[in-house]
Formats: sequence, structure tokens, C-alpha cells
Amino acid sequence: MQIKALTFDVFGTVVDWRSSIAREAGAVLAGGHQDVDWHKFADGWRAKYQPAMERVRKGDRDWVKLDELHRSNLVELLDDYGIDGLNANQIDDLNRAWHRLDPWPDSVPGLTRLKSKFIIGTLSNGNIALIVNMAKNAGLPWDVVLGAEVARAYKPMPQAYLRSAEALSLAPEECLMVAAHNGDLVAAAKSGFKTAFVSRPNEHGPDQYFDFEAEHDFDYVASNFLDLADQLECD
Amino acid sequence: MQIKALTFDVFGTVVDWRSSIAREAGAVLAGGHQDVDWHKFADGWRAKYQPAMERVRKGDRDWVKLDELHRSNLVELLDDYGIDGLNANQIDDLNRAWHRLDPWPDSVPGLTRLKSKFIIGTLSNGNIALIVNMAKNAGLPWDVVLGAEVARAYKPMPQAYLRSAEALSLAPEECLMVAAHNGDLVAAAKSGFKTAFVSRPNEHGPDQYFDFEAEHDFDYVASNFLDLADQLECD
Repeated sequence: MQIKALTFDVFGTVVDWRSSIAREAGAVLAGGHQDVDWHKFADGWRAKYQPAMERVRKGDRDWVKLDELHRSNLVELLDDYGIDGLNANQIDDLNRAWHRLDPWPDSVPGLTRLKSKFIIGTLSNGNIALIVNMAKNAGLPWDVVLGAEVARAYKPMPQAYLRSAEALSLAPEECLMVAAHNGDLVAAAKSGFKTAFVSRPNEHGPDQYFDFEAEHDFDYVASNFLDLADQLECD
Repeated sequence: MQIKALTFDVFGTVVDWRSSIAREAGAVLAGGHQDVDWHKFADGWRAKYQPAMERVRKGDRDWVKLDELHRSNLVELLDDYGIDGLNANQIDDLNRAWHRLDPWPDSVPGLTRLKSKFIIGTLSNGNIALIVNMAKNAGLPWDVVLGAEVARAYKPMPQAYLRSAEALSLAPEECLMVAAHNGDLVAAAKSGFKTAFVSRPNEHGPDQYFDFEAEHDFDYVASNFLDLADQLECD
């Protein structure tokens, strides 16, 4: 079956969350906390992401937007660091740093080329508002926002992939999942998606020790989105 | 409250469904049926739209994608006209004429200007695949597809509007509903949306007898999307 839509993981694959979060957190909080390594702070915030979603996936908590999980994780993290004195509006604003993440340098030009031939959509655990605001801020030219909020299921649950394909009225085999994470692609493949691994070796900074390369037999392996556009013969 | 997002009715407001459907139906079916007025055929197809949705709104039928309602309405209409001999694939393809509707001349340039200042999204009864395919075909630069399939409710039910605003994490008052139909805007206003009437006096062809002008005190009244972009001070 021919590929009709490309569905993208976003955090790490399209945008550089670590540098962006470190910069925003540092700008807001550095006043009284010059000693904090803001990249480690970003890592700490992200480290709470999978466990928070896991409670939802296991049914211990009702489905909520990722913004809400990010916010409660931030409150915990500020407590871990002993940072206090932020009011609710300031916490909300820092939480929306996830709506303002910077794209990798090849993301916008690569997506623009891929969009000329395929439907390009997000298949992220980010909620709709987060993904739309990020796209407006960064110039990401999505055709459609799919993923967790549309599917009411967090990746890597099969429903997140299957309901996203179904929203496009496409068979899973007509969708190519693009991600920098082996686990995401393995789950997508189990639901019938075609798969493209794009390497993002700096996602986790100097200490990254996984997801450097494709560890499975994916349909495409690319060094970035421009390379993927070449392989998919987009102008 | 400041307007952050513009949400658009699509059929009639953004695209000229009547001319497009008449052209496609004529091209496919005219062979054995030279005597049919294909604009009337388009009117007949559209006339079955509200009654079919009404069954869903009243709970007599589970929520289904508009594509499915369009298809059963087409099968009925072909029967009304005594047109037979189409196989299932041919009916599916003609049904997807709704995915290929032409925009009004001001739609793409107007939306492009409006997009520079606001989130622009669809709030249509069209399903996601229909709206995405139409956008790819016509070059409509949506930021996000909302409306019936995301909300699992057909306009003018309040849930269709309220869940679309909620998906953007916006208050209804931060959303401006744009439509060529008084009834759509009245319903949106009841849910707290701001409203903009855009006149489409040729939507229903020479026999149009309603929705020529704003019949209520809407926030904006515009002759087309370029006029609306002027009024909203978009570059």
C-alpha cells in the first residue's frame, strides 16, 4: 500500500525540548538560583513525563491533557529543587514553555518538502493546544493535529496510532510514523504503520546513551528530515 | 477578552460546494443522463444533509463521520433519479467529491492573511479526513481541524462549539466563529463565541432566498475574507 500520510512524534523528533526548556526555566528562575544546571532541570522535568502518563495508561487516572501532567510534574520538580515563591500564573506561564519549543534546524524546511507530497500530521502525546501553539510559534506547517487528545490514549498504546489513522480514513499501512525513538516506532509497527527512524543524537545532551540509531528493521532510516524528504522523493 | 482563534464553517463559507458537486456529478454521470440539471442534483444531495444529521443529533443514530451520511444520502439520491449501474468504488469516488470542493476566490488569500495574526481552524460538520483532503486539494492553510469529529457532536449542538474551544484551551469568548449562515452564528453566540457573518450570496445559486445578510447583531459583518482581514487588522 502506498504511503499517504506521515505522522510525526514531536518532542525530540521535531523540536529540541531540552535546550528550550533549560533556556526558559533559567530565564524565569535563575534570579535566586544561580547554582542550578538548567539542562538537568529540563531533564528532571522530562523524567517525570513517562511515569505520569503511565498512571493514565494503566487506568489509575482519567485521561487528561498533557499540559495538566506537565504542570503537576513542574510543581513536584520545583519542590524537589526547593524553589518556591512562584504564583499560579507564573507556574502556568513556565508550564507553557512546552508550547514554545524550538524546532531542530532541518524541521521546518524538511516538513515543507514532505508536505508537498504527503499529508503531514502530529502523532504526539502533546495536547491539541500545545501542538497548535508550538506550530504557530515555530512555523511548523502541519496539515492536521492527531495523537493523544484526538485518540484519548497516550502512546505507545495501540489506540493512539490506530485512532489517528482512522481519523484520516486511512489504513495503518498508508501511514508512515516518523520518530527519533525506537520504542515509538516498534509500537507503531505493531499497529501496522510503516516506520521511519530519524536520528536526533543531541536530544538528551552530552549524556545521551540510547536512541542513537535504528535498532530494528524500520522502513526508512534518515539522518534528518531533509534526508527523509530525499528518500521519499519530495521536491 | 481578546480573540485568539478564528473558527470557520466550511461548506458554503469557505468552499463553493454547489458548483463543485454539480461539476463532478455531471462529469461522472452525464453519459446516460443528459437531461439532468446537475446543480439541482447537488441541491438534492445537500437537502438530505440536515435530516441525516438530525437523526444523529436526536440520538436515533450513533455518531458517524459525515462521509458516511453523505454516502447513504448519495445512494438515496441516485435512486430518486433512477440512476443505477455504479459499483461501490464508483459511488465511493463520487462521494469523495466533497473532499475536492473549490474555495471561493477570496478564501485562500483571506485565510493566509488571517493566519498571520490568529489561529485559524475549521469548525465544520465535515469529518477530519474530508477537511484535510479538501485543504490539501485547495491549498487551505488551516492550523487545526476541529468541529464535529473532534467534538463527537454535530453543529448546532453546543458541544460542537464548546469542545472545539476547549481543544484549543481557550474560553469561547476568545474564539470568533466565521460563517455565512445566520443559524450557525446564533448557535455559536449562545455558547459564548464571538461571531463574524461573511456573505456568500451565490452559495445556493440563483434561487437562494436566505442568508443574504446578517440578521442578528453579530460582532463582525464582512463581504468576504479579505474584508474580514481588513476589519481584524491583519497584514
